[in-house]
Amino acid sequence: MEAREATGTGESYLRVDAIAKVTGRARYTDDYVMAGMCYAKYVRSPIAHGYANSINCDEARNLPGVLAIFTWEDVPDIPFATAGHAWSLEEGKRDVADRRLLTRHVRHHGDAVAIVVARDELTAEKAAQRVKVDWQPLPVITTPQAALAADAAEIHPGGNLLRQGEMSTGNVEQEINAADYLIEGHFQTPVIQHCHMESVTSFAWMEDDSRISIVSSTQIPHIVRRVVGQALGIPWSCVRVIKPFVGGGFGNKQDVLEEPMAAFLTSKLGGIPVKVSLSREECFLASRTRHAFTIDGQLGLNQDGTLKGYRLDVLSNTGAYASHGHSIASAGGNKVAYLYPRSAYAYRSTTCYTNLPSAGAMRGYGAPQVIFAVESLLDDAATALGLDPVDVRLANAAREGDKNPLTGKTIYSAGLPECLQKGRELFEWDKRRAECQGQQGNIRRGVGVACFSYTSNTWPVGVEISGVRLLMNQDGTINVQSGATEIGQGADTVFAQMVAETVGVPVSMVHVISTQDTDITPFDPGAFASRQSYVVAPAIRKAAEQLRDKILASAAVILHQLSSKLTLVNGNIVLTDRPLIPLLSLKELALDAFYHPERGGQLSAECSVKTMTNPPAFGCTFVDLTIDIALCKVTINRILNVHDSGHILNPLLAEGQVHGGMGMGIGWALFEEMIIDAQSGLVRNPNLLDYKMPTMPDLPDLQSAFVETQEPQSAYGHKSLGEPPIIPVAAAIRNAVKMATGVAINTLPLTPKRLFEEFHQAGLIKG
Amino acid sequence: MEAREATGTGESYLRVDAIAKVTGRARYTDDYVMAGMCYAKYVRSPIAHGYANSINCDEARNLPGVLAIFTWEDVPDIPFATAGHAWSLEEGKRDVADRRLLTRHVRHHGDAVAIVVARDELTAEKAAQRVKVDWQPLPVITTPQAALAADAAEIHPGGNLLRQGEMSTGNVEQEINAADYLIEGHFQTPVIQHCHMESVTSFAWMEDDSRISIVSSTQIPHIVRRVVGQALGIPWSCVRVIKPFVGGGFGNKQDVLEEPMAAFLTSKLGGIPVKVSLSREECFLASRTRHAFTIDGQLGLNQDGTLKGYRLDVLSNTGAYASHGHSIASAGGNKVAYLYPRSAYAYRSTTCYTNLPSAGAMRGYGAPQVIFAVESLLDDAATALGLDPVDVRLANAAREGDKNPLTGKTIYSAGLPECLQKGRELFEWDKRRAECQGQQGNIRRGVGVACFSYTSNTWPVGVEISGVRLLMNQDGTINVQSGATEIGQGADTVFAQMVAETVGVPVSMVHVISTQDTDITPFDPGAFASRQSYVVAPAIRKAAEQLRDKILASAAVILHQLSSKLTLVNGNIVLTDRPLIPLLSLKELALDAFYHPERGGQLSAECSVKTMTNPPAFGCTFVDLTIDIALCKVTINRILNVHDSGHILNPLLAEGQVHGGMGMGIGWALFEEMIIDAQSGLVRNPNLLDYKMPTMPDLPDLQSAFVETQEPQSAYGHKSLGEPPIIPVAAAIRNAVKMATGVAINTLPLTPKRLFEEFHQAGLIKG
Repeated sequence: MEAREATGTGESYLRVDAIAKVTGRARYTDDYVMAGMCYAKYVRSPIAHGYANSINCDEARNLPGVLAIFTWEDVPDIPFATAGHAWSLEEGKRDVADRRLLTRHVRHHGDAVAIVVARDELTAEKAAQRVKVDWQPLPVITTPQAALAADAAEIHPGGNLLRQGEMSTGNVEQEINAADYLIEGHFQTPVIQHCHMESVTSFAWMEDDSRISIVSSTQIPHIVRRVVGQALGIPWSCVRVIKPFVGGGFGNKQDVLEEPMAAFLTSKLGGIPVKVSLSREECFLASRTRHAFTIDGQLGLNQDGTLKGYRLDVLSNTGAYASHGHSIASAGGNKVAYLYPRSAYAYRSTTCYTNLPSAGAMRGYGAPQVIFAVESLLDDAATALGLDPVDVRLANAAREGDKNPLTGKTIYSAGLPECLQKGRELFEWDKRRAECQGQQGNIRRGVGVACFSYTSNTWPVGVEISGVRLLMNQDGTINVQSGATEIGQGADTVFAQMVAETVGVPVSMVHVISTQDTDITPFDPGAFASRQSYVVAPAIRKAAEQLRDKILASAAVILHQLSSKLTLVNGNIVLTDRPLIPLLSLKELALDAFYHPERGGQLSAECSVKTMTNPPAFGCTFVDLTIDIALCKVTINRILNVHDSGHILNPLLAEGQVHGGMGMGIGWALFEEMIIDAQSGLVRNPNLLDYKMPTMPDLPDLQSAFVETQEPQSAYGHKSLGEPPIIPVAAAIRNAVKMATGVAINTLPLTPKRLFEEFHQAGLIKG
Repeated sequence: MEAREATGTGESYLRVDAIAKVTGRARYTDDYVMAGMCYAKYVRSPIAHGYANSINCDEARNLPGVLAIFTWEDVPDIPFATAGHAWSLEEGKRDVADRRLLTRHVRHHGDAVAIVVARDELTAEKAAQRVKVDWQPLPVITTPQAALAADAAEIHPGGNLLRQGEMSTGNVEQEINAADYLIEGHFQTPVIQHCHMESVTSFAWMEDDSRISIVSSTQIPHIVRRVVGQALGIPWSCVRVIKPFVGGGFGNKQDVLEEPMAAFLTSKLGGIPVKVSLSREECFLASRTRHAFTIDGQLGLNQDGTLKGYRLDVLSNTGAYASHGHSIASAGGNKVAYLYPRSAYAYRSTTCYTNLPSAGAMRGYGAPQVIFAVESLLDDAATALGLDPVDVRLANAAREGDKNPLTGKTIYSAGLPECLQKGRELFEWDKRRAECQGQQGNIRRGVGVACFSYTSNTWPVGVEISGVRLLMNQDGTINVQSGATEIGQGADTVFAQMVAETVGVPVSMVHVISTQDTDITPFDPGAFASRQSYVVAPAIRKAAEQLRDKILASAAVILHQLSSKLTLVNGNIVLTDRPLIPLLSLKELALDAFYHPERGGQLSAECSVKTMTNPPAFGCTFVDLTIDIALCKVTINRILNVHDSGHILNPLLAEGQVHGGMGMGIGWALFEEMIIDAQSGLVRNPNLLDYKMPTMPDLPDLQSAFVETQEPQSAYGHKSLGEPPIIPVAAAIRNAVKMATGVAINTLPLTPKRLFEEFHQAGLIKG
């Protein structure tokens, strides 16, 4: 890896945090300790819906080491929303504020009625177990269908319908009806958990009587600041949020989870440091999950492969509290609209409360569910018409110059056709597909493909703002501060590459301050919506250009040259027309700037930029798998993702990102499912022993490829890549299973149990 | 105290850190802990000069819990300088690099030959005691006179003369000779310690294999960064220095003390956190002291009170290592030059190495010593001529329009005559002086006066650079980051007031980030030379004006007004010609800036400014004291400092600063002295039991007053106040003792022991 010489984007620069992380020196939230730190543990509901008639904390309070116990009666009566969205000036666009710090009316298995603070974690746990609650059960609702029943118990005042929405190109009915072939399908996706390595954890303390500091493993420090301020009813600037290294988030940490409670506790306890950490079991019950979608779809395809139109009707199960709520169902419909933009399209979505653990943001944000339905329907229609699934997609895939059928926005870069072509060749699609024809017997092979589109941020639904500050050090190196957060995805590394490219220095001269601190870090809502590399880029570009101009202006004074004749190459000031002859190093310039008795001064630049473009990324998954029908076992022989994410900023990191997404996609397709009792609402497998997520032995060799386009709206030609790799995986696998067996399975995950049911029903397994 | 409504400078706004500090919530360096932190303890020399022939660490190394022991052989062979000065591009202006992390050639009692790192502090101490060193003593030198002897042992290669200097108006000889009265004097000042409440402490760790983070109780984080880089031979930007609240510095922490060692140790131990803290005893031996000066002076005064000229010859004892070295002797001569600028003046200074603990910067930086001589000589001449000491000073004191006799720089604000007049009245000088005439007997009263001048930073000797960043929060409040450090003096509070005044908001809307972090804090060398309020002010003013302009530009868009018609009053945007009608609050504007989907962006401003002016502050001490000759006891009846520090930014804080300085001045005059054996060089009282610093019962009621001038070169009309209050106190006390007893004592401190010797010699005490 040619790490040291890299000078910009497009190069496989070693992660800037690689050494810190592999040596174990990187400090995560739980690695920090404070003198006198205390620990909090929740008293949680053993039922999924009900009231606490009474609570008795006497025995718990008498345990030596217990500092305080708070119940629902002790917390502020201020409802707040936890979703990690940018705040909106329009009240109607804000997230639903349906949560208090503790609740008497418990709405899901593990909901919190009280919290114990003790000198040590074990005592807190013991004391929490000794709090006695008299529970009054209420009817438990686990499905949107039940939630919407006329006589359903109200989980929140006002009813169980959270929100509904519709969008349409207007002509779907006619187009579908006019198509050669109409297909319908009913799809169901599971509740899953993020299973980030680092659990949910934060701690808070006070430095005086008004300001609260919080260290948290969060994707969204600046949003946490606001929400804690809102939840406690204090000025937002009195909350300071610090984000160290984060051990994975995947959207779970795009919610404001335990920070308001940590802040509340320290504010009640004289400012002592209080830590609130969730165990893995608590993460399952009381953090956020992926929304289970029920999708009814219709699709019309012509014999020549032209997709005439498709319509989706989505029921989204948001669980006990809104969190991101309806945004997920809505976003899924929006993001898919770029995929086949020349066809008619209608999307209706309904999000309901139930007594499941709260669902929130998770990698893909509704798109995996929607793409699972669309790409299954399209595949089924192609199968019915005897068309090659790749050909069908090629015929309908977005092309440059197409417009988003809902918004009319032009697609300037669209590499999906090239992705399909490239994948077809690399994957040897035609050969493999031919090999899979006409199989019989117990062991069968199939190939499948699926595509996706995904946007690069939240605009125009959300405000897209990002801030960057560059600061020159005494040795000429450059520090970068950004409100955007490194949570494992490699953001800091590509930021360093962007700065280096625009200023004109080796990447090794750029140091990214990875820790955000809302008191000083430029404002940015955080890591979500695959937004960061896209929306931070223009702020970096602008700040880097400003810094470069200041450098050249200083150099002009030192060198007695016109700054217009100077430029920066590889950390040296040179004459533009003699770029190989260094006139002054940045180190020499920095020493002059800091230490010349009269001229100069520290060089810095800071920019806050709002982004109002949101180009779609595209891509596809090809999969070749073998099914042992009798054993209901799927073996992936080969899997390849091909992505158009514009200019690839760092091929090595991009590959890692794709591999991670593919692994998660395989987990969602084949393994993962929170098993929730339909009657009681209790979660049966809230732990990593009983909840099966794929580990390395479960995964095949993951392959990726890129089609590089240049997105003209993007500061460095790039588009989103964080979430996309997960999106098409499940549909491709489902389509390959269908090809191998003839059985189209529309409910995820494709566990042996489900395959058995489906194969049995299809007559492949007898008896 | 009308704390909440303050809108700018000149108001007694409550310290911004008051509540954090009085509640005990403020976290100092030793309040921080890190998981796995280890502790280091030095092996120190029991002799003042010598070589370690050999060292045996076996027994120490075998102690369970000992991680490592390093000796002089293990540290980098890189000499470095520790003085907290801005770096200079000119090699000749740099501090003397005469120190390594550990040394075989020990040069003072307590010099360090080795260091032990252990899992806990007690084990480290025990192990350090078990390291066996075979010492070879060398001749011990304790005075500059001995150091300069032709056959003196060389404490450092090249000899014991560190540096010499001379400055003069050129005509001193003639002017003194032409005066009506010539007086000569020989003065001696003691070695003292700062006795800051918080000991010297720092800890360091690494986040990867190249970057070292250090938390330190320092006045100069950015200088520490550079010096650690130099001492370890690593790029300066690979060092990150964090300064939390500091519990006092007084110049001791204007040296780079234990940070390089902490950084070295963590770099050798795989990045684990290592703390290096000095005990109080170690602070006495191995941090820095105030230079002992020997001054020979001559002064010529006319019968009408006109000071014709004065000449000083200074021998400065810098101890074992240079630290600030000759700068102190040189600065003392420079700073006094503003006091009586119409007289001839010559100043010669010589700084020598000896085997005393190293002297460094201490409040006043040479000026207290020089003023002690000048104000004693002038007083003695006035006494001899029968003149009122106040009249004499009034006749010669700097006036507006005078020029510094050495540099020719114009004095634009000179409130010294008014200080003397105001003091004369407040103190009832004439009445008290009359009451003290013609006393006999054992109990006698005396009054004394002394003046000083002191500059406001280090220009042009040092580069004066300061950086400030302002950042608007989501609720419209403003965060301030400055590289200048709050070390107890109230800097953060006056910074907040300056920002508030220039932006146009209540001070309560301004939050100063008190912690410096060299990775992100704007560059500033730190707290010393009474510079901060003066040199940070123009950076604040410029940044605040920029922020204000951005605010008004944003408001103009929102309000559809010309920004030129708008202004900010008390946190609201108003029309300039209707200032009482708020059109938009800053909070509303901030919400728009952050959350409007298209316009706006976070508002910020950052400036780095070099200051090239350095106006003198002035002032004087009046004291009334009673002496019990038989008991050799001095009782201060009344003491008053009157200061011209230009515009007073915060009267309450200014008063506190003056009181603190007066207390230290009384300590220097009457109590404090490190007792160092002239033969062995051993320090006999390196602890707060045997070293007498005044405590509250030892101090009289301290009174202060101000003459407010407006310094036109200053951003807010102010001048230095940090160090000045200590400067004239000792001379005023010495002059009062002289008036009461007729005995002019020229050696400090005026302890009972010294008074006895002097009174005995003068015949006041018989036998």
